[in-house]
Amino acid sequence: MSKAKKVGLIGGGVIGAGWAARLLLNGIDVVWYDPAAGVADRMAEVVANALRAYRKMTLASVAVRGQLTQADSIADAVRRVDFIQESGPERLDLKQQLLGEVAHHAPAETIIASSSSGLLPSDLQAEVAHPARVIVGHPFNPVYLMPLVEIVGGKKTSAAVKQQAAQFYRAIGMHPLVVRKEVAAFIADRLMEALWREALHLLNEEVATVDELDQAIIYGPGLRWAFMGPFLTFRIAGGAGGMRHFMEQFGPTLKWPWTRFDGPELTEALLDKIAAQSDIQAAGRSTIALEQMRDDCIVSIMQGLRANQTAAGVVLARYEEQLYQVAPATAATDPPLNQPLCLHRDTVHPHWLDYNHHMTESSYLQAMGDASDALFRFIGVDADYHAAGFSYFTRETHLRHVGALTTGRAFYVTTQLLGVDAKRLHIFHSLHAADDDTVASTAEQMLLHVDTQRGRSCPVQPAVLARLESLMAAHHHLARPPAAGQLSFTRP
Amino acid sequence: MSKAKKVGLIGGGVIGAGWAARLLLNGIDVVWYDPAAGVADRMAEVVANALRAYRKMTLASVAVRGQLTQADSIADAVRRVDFIQESGPERLDLKQQLLGEVAHHAPAETIIASSSSGLLPSDLQAEVAHPARVIVGHPFNPVYLMPLVEIVGGKKTSAAVKQQAAQFYRAIGMHPLVVRKEVAAFIADRLMEALWREALHLLNEEVATVDELDQAIIYGPGLRWAFMGPFLTFRIAGGAGGMRHFMEQFGPTLKWPWTRFDGPELTEALLDKIAAQSDIQAAGRSTIALEQMRDDCIVSIMQGLRANQTAAGVVLARYEEQLYQVAPATAATDPPLNQPLCLHRDTVHPHWLDYNHHMTESSYLQAMGDASDALFRFIGVDADYHAAGFSYFTRETHLRHVGALTTGRAFYVTTQLLGVDAKRLHIFHSLHAADDDTVASTAEQMLLHVDTQRGRSCPVQPAVLARLESLMAAHHHLARPPAAGQLSFTRP
Repeated sequence: MSKAKKVGLIGGGVIGAGWAARLLLNGIDVVWYDPAAGVADRMAEVVANALRAYRKMTLASVAVRGQLTQADSIADAVRRVDFIQESGPERLDLKQQLLGEVAHHAPAETIIASSSSGLLPSDLQAEVAHPARVIVGHPFNPVYLMPLVEIVGGKKTSAAVKQQAAQFYRAIGMHPLVVRKEVAAFIADRLMEALWREALHLLNEEVATVDELDQAIIYGPGLRWAFMGPFLTFRIAGGAGGMRHFMEQFGPTLKWPWTRFDGPELTEALLDKIAAQSDIQAAGRSTIALEQMRDDCIVSIMQGLRANQTAAGVVLARYEEQLYQVAPATAATDPPLNQPLCLHRDTVHPHWLDYNHHMTESSYLQAMGDASDALFRFIGVDADYHAAGFSYFTRETHLRHVGALTTGRAFYVTTQLLGVDAKRLHIFHSLHAADDDTVASTAEQMLLHVDTQRGRSCPVQPAVLARLESLMAAHHHLARPPAAGQLSFTRP
Repeated sequence: MSKAKKVGLIGGGVIGAGWAARLLLNGIDVVWYDPAAGVADRMAEVVANALRAYRKMTLASVAVRGQLTQADSIADAVRRVDFIQESGPERLDLKQQLLGEVAHHAPAETIIASSSSGLLPSDLQAEVAHPARVIVGHPFNPVYLMPLVEIVGGKKTSAAVKQQAAQFYRAIGMHPLVVRKEVAAFIADRLMEALWREALHLLNEEVATVDELDQAIIYGPGLRWAFMGPFLTFRIAGGAGGMRHFMEQFGPTLKWPWTRFDGPELTEALLDKIAAQSDIQAAGRSTIALEQMRDDCIVSIMQGLRANQTAAGVVLARYEEQLYQVAPATAATDPPLNQPLCLHRDTVHPHWLDYNHHMTESSYLQAMGDASDALFRFIGVDADYHAAGFSYFTRETHLRHVGALTTGRAFYVTTQLLGVDAKRLHIFHSLHAADDDTVASTAEQMLLHVDTQRGRSCPVQPAVLARLESLMAAHHHLARPPAAGQLSFTRP
């Protein structure tokens, strides 16, 4: 089919409104029908939610570019559209009646997709005019964000219609999965439903609460399932031996009471199928490559969840607080005060390098920031101080690149105080290669003490100020770094 | 227990090595024993993988700070440690024998945790000296990243030991879940196993291939499971009516053949329990608040996966290409030259935030560096130019922080040329929030043109210089940014 310009929707509940939002954001006009009261408000709310999410998701320009029209009847909603999506209640008799009426009014070639999460398309298309164009197109909530849509044909569905529907869904940013055989609940919902029923048993038997059952997913297997299904996960767990090794090792546990449900018999034929299809799926990627992909994805997901202060992201944030409290072993507890402080040592990290294998500018600044954090801990600006609502924020940095460091090279940062007052802190960092003490970079910084609740500057707490003043009294006698206060920016 | 300093590990396979890596990165010494051949290489590989992942995960300083010692016997591995973790093969007879020997040599008060994924702690502790200190502490692969650890006690385990173990695991960045009742496979693996057995049936019956089954998870329910378990997911699906409404609507489907496994009887008592516990879990959050949290997390996860070119991240990247084709890219091919150039747009990435949810200084500089890269491409300093042995290197940066951006916020950078000569390029970047055009940060930079083979400055190639000079001729008429050439560093 050519690109759809207008789509008819039957049903404006959570799923129907989710379809509307996805379509409108893709510049497709929507005509929708739902006889229930109050659905228009809900529709507007879902579209607003979707726009909000898309603006966060992509830098591409997004807007509600399609036109939304509420129809007065099924006939009006389906007569002049390029594609029809039905999202009525999950009852066979009701859906059959709805789809019968839709098919009666829609042109014979218009594809009719049902959002049903479990009814068989053969049953849905049984009493419908031109049944070859009827499919199930099963989405996931929220429809405007979740990529998966399962396409299931019935006995009378044509193969071409399934492919056309896949093309339609792909064009609106989805990942269509054409299901090979018609089974109740298709694929994803069968997998979910098995897990769900086991969860209900565990709840019923007081093994775990609702929240504990959810915790068991989101802090564990759920973190992997966002990018790696059970087969690829188990392949990696099998190590160098791969899937065959894993199945041989864990095959017997399929007979164990690890759920109350029985698995299939692990015949040689099934084992061969699993091993062969797992090799195809791995596409030649080594275990170590798959492990690093897995780790990178878990790290990215945890960082994303940290930004949203949710689930494993909260665990990571709490853990980082601890990490920041651990003073690096190399920083002396009581360093000499008559020279610049040396509180931070590290090595050049591999991911700090750019495509030229040079340490990026921003990585130098990160190392300087780590040195500032070490200074903060030294003067008593620690996790408790932050929790009390105070912090130093950098206002200005003058960063100079004098030398260059490569990966794995050890370095240390020395820090000289240039000035202190009630609100400001003026410092000068020098980053030295550890092997020959040459300076690779310097950063002069002006920091401001802030009340983080109110978001504005405020005087530093007395104990910290006292610490800073005694340090300043010592550093006052040091020679001022020649580069301090100097920009080369007057030329050319 | 006070903070552990040394931990004994029995077993150095994937799970044992994962424990070692997590402990070493937390500054805890590890003594490990595994009689198998080649395990030391694998151990080193896993520790290296873990260090790599931690350096990506956090800006806090991480290093392998604990000491790793391979022991010659079980006795040597457990005699003088604060905690023992056993990760041997998943066979009851073997584990009983291992744990018996461990308990014989370990001090009576040392906690002994087994990594078993399904054996009952009552069976594991049956023949062990001082069985009250034996638990299961069941981790997930990779142990150094996955937060979840299930703590399960047997009939003879003391309640205090479970709490002490939870404290130990929490201190090394994990999320301990104390399981209320001793059941085979505990909680997470029971849920996984139910899903896994259903998947094997679907594979066996040719409904789907290995890869299609994984697709059904990673593009669909798996994206939500990374932060939201089935109960909270279904609560949201119930809309304003909440969990009670959802269960009333979907309760009957528990009798439908949506998996081959039977759920429990949905009695009034079970429905009440679900509804009441779901209210506790929601903790007063409205449906709309939960929906927006869900959407934000899905968006962050898809963006994280996009950065790793994996799964739903690939769908998003392809979709964005389409979006950019629909709406003309915001950076025009031929931008107006009589105003600062706008060549770079982006959103604040989740991993750019520090523990205070502020964008780090180094991330601002990275965004400026990206804008410099865009400028380079614009003037013809591209991959071919670099391959020919020439590049611009930054010598000096003056970075100012004027406002603040949070995750997901869109921004753009404008770039004004302040000066050009044969070897030098003097520019001024301004980073603006895209929604209100306010300036969050500026960076004035002096760059030097270098011969990368010889590692010293050299004149820029004529075509690039001509491009720069025509640009400079246009920018010459622009007002000089007030902050250019100015440091506030003369005060205090």
